[in-house]
Amino acid sequence: MRILLTNDDGIYAKGIEALYETLVREHEVTVVAPETEQSAVGHSITFLNPLRVKSVQRNGQFFGYALDGTPADCVKIAIAELLKPPPEIVISGINKGANIGVDVIYSGTVSAATEASVMGVPSIAISIDSFRTTDFSAVQKFIPELLAMVVKHGLPPGVSLNVNVPAVPAEEIRGVRITHQGKMKYVESYDRRIDPRNNVYYWLCSSAPIRDLDPCADSIAIEQKCISITPIHYDLTHYGTLDTLRAWCSSLDHTDFSGQKRTLQRDID
Amino acid sequence: MRILLTNDDGIYAKGIEALYETLVREHEVTVVAPETEQSAVGHSITFLNPLRVKSVQRNGQFFGYALDGTPADCVKIAIAELLKPPPEIVISGINKGANIGVDVIYSGTVSAATEASVMGVPSIAISIDSFRTTDFSAVQKFIPELLAMVVKHGLPPGVSLNVNVPAVPAEEIRGVRITHQGKMKYVESYDRRIDPRNNVYYWLCSSAPIRDLDPCADSIAIEQKCISITPIHYDLTHYGTLDTLRAWCSSLDHTDFSGQKRTLQRDID
Repeated sequence: MRILLTNDDGIYAKGIEALYETLVREHEVTVVAPETEQSAVGHSITFLNPLRVKSVQRNGQFFGYALDGTPADCVKIAIAELLKPPPEIVISGINKGANIGVDVIYSGTVSAATEASVMGVPSIAISIDSFRTTDFSAVQKFIPELLAMVVKHGLPPGVSLNVNVPAVPAEEIRGVRITHQGKMKYVESYDRRIDPRNNVYYWLCSSAPIRDLDPCADSIAIEQKCISITPIHYDLTHYGTLDTLRAWCSSLDHTDFSGQKRTLQRDID
Repeated sequence: MRILLTNDDGIYAKGIEALYETLVREHEVTVVAPETEQSAVGHSITFLNPLRVKSVQRNGQFFGYALDGTPADCVKIAIAELLKPPPEIVISGINKGANIGVDVIYSGTVSAATEASVMGVPSIAISIDSFRTTDFSAVQKFIPELLAMVVKHGLPPGVSLNVNVPAVPAEEIRGVRITHQGKMKYVESYDRRIDPRNNVYYWLCSSAPIRDLDPCADSIAIEQKCISITPIHYDLTHYGTLDTLRAWCSSLDHTDFSGQKRTLQRDID
């Protein structure tokens, strides 16, 4: 298969190297990744400025393309411009640190996978639940199996997979659990500091997370040493609130801006 | 009410000024907005670097705080640090250019509202469907009415409103329509150029959009001169695919990493 690899930790990160080494044995793998770390850039894209692409070598051989942009930029430019024919699947990772709970919305790793699904290419974001591990064996063992499943079954249009793997050796993984994005989030504050020129600056700090209770939440799965797979999409509509809002509007003073009765568009609701 | 205003066009943009002038007559309004334009930064947040806050004047009077960060940073630092007591509602905008369809995921304006909802503060993102208009009268007329509705009814936890207003004078608005995030997206390509030093660079271009057909889509509402209100949330789970994925996994070769049968976590699914 033609596989595009990207990440948000940057092209020189160990996680993308581990993914590359695992997949290049059996697939045609192209790496297009940010030149520098782009953690927590979310779905940021670059259009106010131009982008530059650099060729990167590893162990004396061509490894991939480094972009001075975000993970979503990497996927966009790879599919639209750099890879001809385009990739059949996009894999983003291996991210250091789990992308679970509310953190998913900040994640460059996940946004790269989402961007691929926007562009019609199936995609997987994969993260390991540690900022420091160098043991990617569990991911390396699981990813070919997951890839085979995605190829066999396909993914629904607009849906990508957000996969999180516990930071334990492959043999300690207890199984795979299909999960939903949980409610885990960090309680954040700002550290107020004074720079050497006596100016105030602030630095974002995180403290103990607000935890999930539901065992089908992503965070609980990885806590219980299961690989968590959450199907995600990019339609942010909260469908459960549509009717409530329609009821609000029907109780509005219907006088519209032109001084006539405002007609709620019930005919087409 | 204590209202926090932010945007992604930057603190010097006309849209936030129009919003400020409309709301300051009846409310306690604080502006915390990016110092420079932050369009399409999505839900990017800053934690690798510190943040600085500057006081900004307008017409010789204090107007608000400019931050060298993203819209989501502005909301985070305003609620966690700068505003005591915290705001009762966050309004992000008036953005120049509609935030509809797939573009919602790239929007700094919308992400600021989402960040507020993550932090438990009700929020509204509001955009006008023009990059050039200086006539914000339709938004200025509608926003107090919308604000009154939100105060009266409240918003469900985690839900914010993404509001888009047609770029026509207030008296030409045909009504309010409750919508879902549509499928409209731009077909994108990269312009390959050569800089004065003979290096290649790329610039993202957009061409004719892929259009919605559904009249309840956000883009069709504003095309038909209706104000579009879409309730949005930040749970990206595609619930419709959970069972499909569970079926995939049950057909897996169950040999797990430790050589024993892998047990799908059916007991708690």
